[in-house]
Order: sequence, then structure tokens, then C-alpha cells
Amino acid sequence: MITPLDYFRYCLIPLVLFFPTMAGAEMKTRIVEYRQGDTVLQGFLAYDTAGPARKPGVLVVHEWTGLGPYVKNRAEQLARLGYVAFAADIYGKGVRPNNPKDAAATATLYKTDRNLLRERVKAALEELRHQGNTDPGRIAAIGYCFGGTTVLELARSGADIKGIVSFHGGLDTPSPQDAKNIRAKVLVLHGADDPFVTSEQVKSFEDEMRGGNVDWQLVKYSKAVHSFTNPDAGNDNSKGAAYNAEADRRSWEEMKSFFNEIF
Amino acid sequence: MITPLDYFRYCLIPLVLFFPTMAGAEMKTRIVEYRQGDTVLQGFLAYDTAGPARKPGVLVVHEWTGLGPYVKNRAEQLARLGYVAFAADIYGKGVRPNNPKDAAATATLYKTDRNLLRERVKAALEELRHQGNTDPGRIAAIGYCFGGTTVLELARSGADIKGIVSFHGGLDTPSPQDAKNIRAKVLVLHGADDPFVTSEQVKSFEDEMRGGNVDWQLVKYSKAVHSFTNPDAGNDNSKGAAYNAEADRRSWEEMKSFFNEIF
Repeated sequence: MITPLDYFRYCLIPLVLFFPTMAGAEMKTRIVEYRQGDTVLQGFLAYDTAGPARKPGVLVVHEWTGLGPYVKNRAEQLARLGYVAFAADIYGKGVRPNNPKDAAATATLYKTDRNLLRERVKAALEELRHQGNTDPGRIAAIGYCFGGTTVLELARSGADIKGIVSFHGGLDTPSPQDAKNIRAKVLVLHGADDPFVTSEQVKSFEDEMRGGNVDWQLVKYSKAVHSFTNPDAGNDNSKGAAYNAEADRRSWEEMKSFFNEIF
Repeated sequence: MITPLDYFRYCLIPLVLFFPTMAGAEMKTRIVEYRQGDTVLQGFLAYDTAGPARKPGVLVVHEWTGLGPYVKNRAEQLARLGYVAFAADIYGKGVRPNNPKDAAATATLYKTDRNLLRERVKAALEELRHQGNTDPGRIAAIGYCFGGTTVLELARSGADIKGIVSFHGGLDTPSPQDAKNIRAKVLVLHGADDPFVTSEQVKSFEDEMRGGNVDWQLVKYSKAVHSFTNPDAGNDNSKGAAYNAEADRRSWEEMKSFFNEIF
């Protein structure tokens, strides 16, 4: 007859060895201070101690309100998926506009100075790349709203990364000719009823991507407007920005499939 | 000490019971004759004997050349994924146009008589629904080129199915007002450079879906033209129809995610 000890030895131990286990997994997060030029920036790093010593890295770029709870939560979600996630700080330490007027004004500073925007996001990328547990050859960047615009600019700068994902990001650029520099695969997740990212803007973007011979995909989600991934946006589509649980779930799955492809 | 028999009893048997196994799985295919009115139709059924007694059903609608090796192969792929797959015959027994001129002429008969097209595809749907191993409450329909147009018409007819997927299908319809009848979730997988499904047609389709308050998604694949999932289409994009391995793979994955959602 098999004894409980035998069962443990010959059945459970092999099972535990054979199947990846989350035993011992622990989420680590910390604030990381870094610089771009003379500007001090304060990002947020998240990873899980389980899994391989080096993991793919995912840069997360915030909406127009700057680095806050929303993107920190996304970074933690990515960490649980097995990535080293780094939420960038584009605006600078302590610059966290807390109302739409200030947020719009701050975002405009960067939208009208794309070189500065690129330098800020590149600084965050390098910070992520140099984390000891990041595999420097496997990095992607994702962004929400303003952050979507930002990761597209990162791609246009010729950044050596595997892919970028824009969630309801603005798709316009003053430098469409820079699409030829893009090395990343591009995935755009777009609310089909987004009044802030118009169909004309989508069309210009598609033409830009074609012109640059980019590997791009664009997904349109019905009934989704701006900010469709953010529960804080409420549920009134008539405001132009609202949460859409279905589009949120689908776009997150889309991103995961994309990562499975590029990593 | 554990004996080999104990190991078998207490370790291997539980493992086999716990993890789904393909042991004993066997692909079954057969020609199925059925009717629409007085017309005899000859479809192709595929399923795997493994898995549950009732599985979700997937209807597969052919390109303009009629039911042939391409969609049969897709039906077998779907069977291996665990579905009861039924490749419909829209044209009728023996009607298998073997050159583009005849294929275009035959397809035009149905594109210009959408009522007949709907009746034909509904007959196939009912044939699938009544297979003993189909779960009648979990059915989807996919289609390629002409077949994409067809499954959209099936949806517009108000068919009680969970979802439809169009691969490089024509999106036009003479009855956009019928979008209000659509009960299926709609997934359109579109080549961004498809010259036969123009951006104007895509726009009209999107407006139609909005008007009908449909749950729809549309994915555009860069560098993909018409027929992007079919290796027989060659690799010359300038002809307007060509295979694109990346878009083929991505669109198949997209369909699988969609099925995971709806089934």
C-alpha cells in the first residue's frame, strides 16, 4: 500500500516540479527616481519575484493626469503576468495635475514639443532597460490616452523595442515622415466612437503607417469612446470619455496576444 | 517502497483524469447532403471524437469558388480545436466554379439576391444545429471573402447565433437597416490594403453597425490585401489578393479569442 509519505515523494513533488508554481511569488514595487537632462522624474517599478531572472520589460505611459493610481495598477497587472513593468513619469517629480484644466495644459506642453516628449519617454525606456531583471532585448511600451500618443512618438524616434500598444491614444503627429524609423510592431486599440481621436485622424495615421512600411494593426471597439479602459471615466458615452468594460477586457486580451507574439 | 503498480494507480491515473488528454481522439469527417427548398446542397462536417458529447458548432462559409479544399481544411482545423465544424454549401451540389470568371458569375447570383443567400446559409446553419453532437445554444459562423459577406447576411437575418467572423469579406449590403436584427457579436478581420473592400465600404459598414446598435469589432492588418488567409492567393499584393502569413496567423488567433469570449 502507498503511504502518505510515498504519495508526497512520488506524486506531489513531481507535480510541483513539473507545473509552474506561484509558490514564493511576491510582488515587488518601488518608486524609482531618474533624470532626463536636469529634470528629476519619479517612475514606478513593479515585478514579481517568481519566474526567470530576466523577464521582458513593459514601459507604461500615463494619461494626461500624469503618473497616478491607474497606471500603477496597470504596472502591477503586468508584473503579475510575468513582466518587469515600469510606469514612466513624463511630467517630472511632483507634477501630477489633479483637474482636467491643468492636465490639458500640462499635456499640451509635451504635445507641442514632441522632441521633449521623446526625450522624456526615452529616458524612461533606458531606466527600464537597465533594471537588472529586465531582458534588454525584449521590451515593449504601452500607453493610455496621452500615453498612447507618447509611445507612438517613442516608436517614431526609432527606439529599439519589440512593440508598442496605444490604448485610446491620440494618433496625430507633426512628423509623419518619421514613421520610416519605426522598428517596433504597432498595435492601436481604438474606441470606434471616440470623438477625440476622429476618423480623419485614424485615416491619417493609417496612411502614415503605410508610408513608413510599418507592421501595424488597428482594432476598433464598438460603443467605446475615449478612456474606455478607465473605470474612473464613468459610464456616460455622451461626454466623449467613458469606461467600457467589454472594450477594456478585449483590449487587454489583445495586448496579451500581441506580447505573446513579440516576446 | 512504492511499486510500479502503485505509481500507476496513484500517480498516473489521477494525472490522466485531471488533465485533458487527446488519447483516443479521432477526427471524423463526412459529406452531408441537405436541402434548401428544392435545391440539394452538399456540405462537409468535421469533428473530433474527443471531448464533451456536445460541442459548440462553427459554420464555415466558402469563398467565391464554392466549397473546396480550403474551407474543408479550415473545418478540420476547427474540429481539432474542439468544435463541430460544418462547411456550408451555398451554391448547390456539384456547383464548384473552377475559374475566376465562373466564380465571379456564380457569386454575383447570390450577392444580387440576398434573400436567396440568406436562405441558403440559414439551411446550413440548421443542418449544423441539428447534428447530435452540436450544442444548439452555442453556434458561430465564419466566412472567407464571399463567405464573409454571407455570414454578415446571416447575422442581419436575425439568426440566433453567438457570433460571426468575416475574414476579408465584402461588407456591403443592400439592407443596412437590417443591422437592427443582429443578435450575434460581429468580428470583422480586414486587410488594411484590400482594394476590393474599400475604405468607403468599411466606413459604410461601421455606420451600419452603429445604426443597428451591434456589438462589433473590426481589426485592420497592415500590408494585407484580399484573400490574406489563403496560401493559394500567391504573394503579389499588387494583384489585390495575396496570402499574408502574419495576418493569417493573427486573424486566426483573433477568432480563437473571440470564440473563447462567446462560447
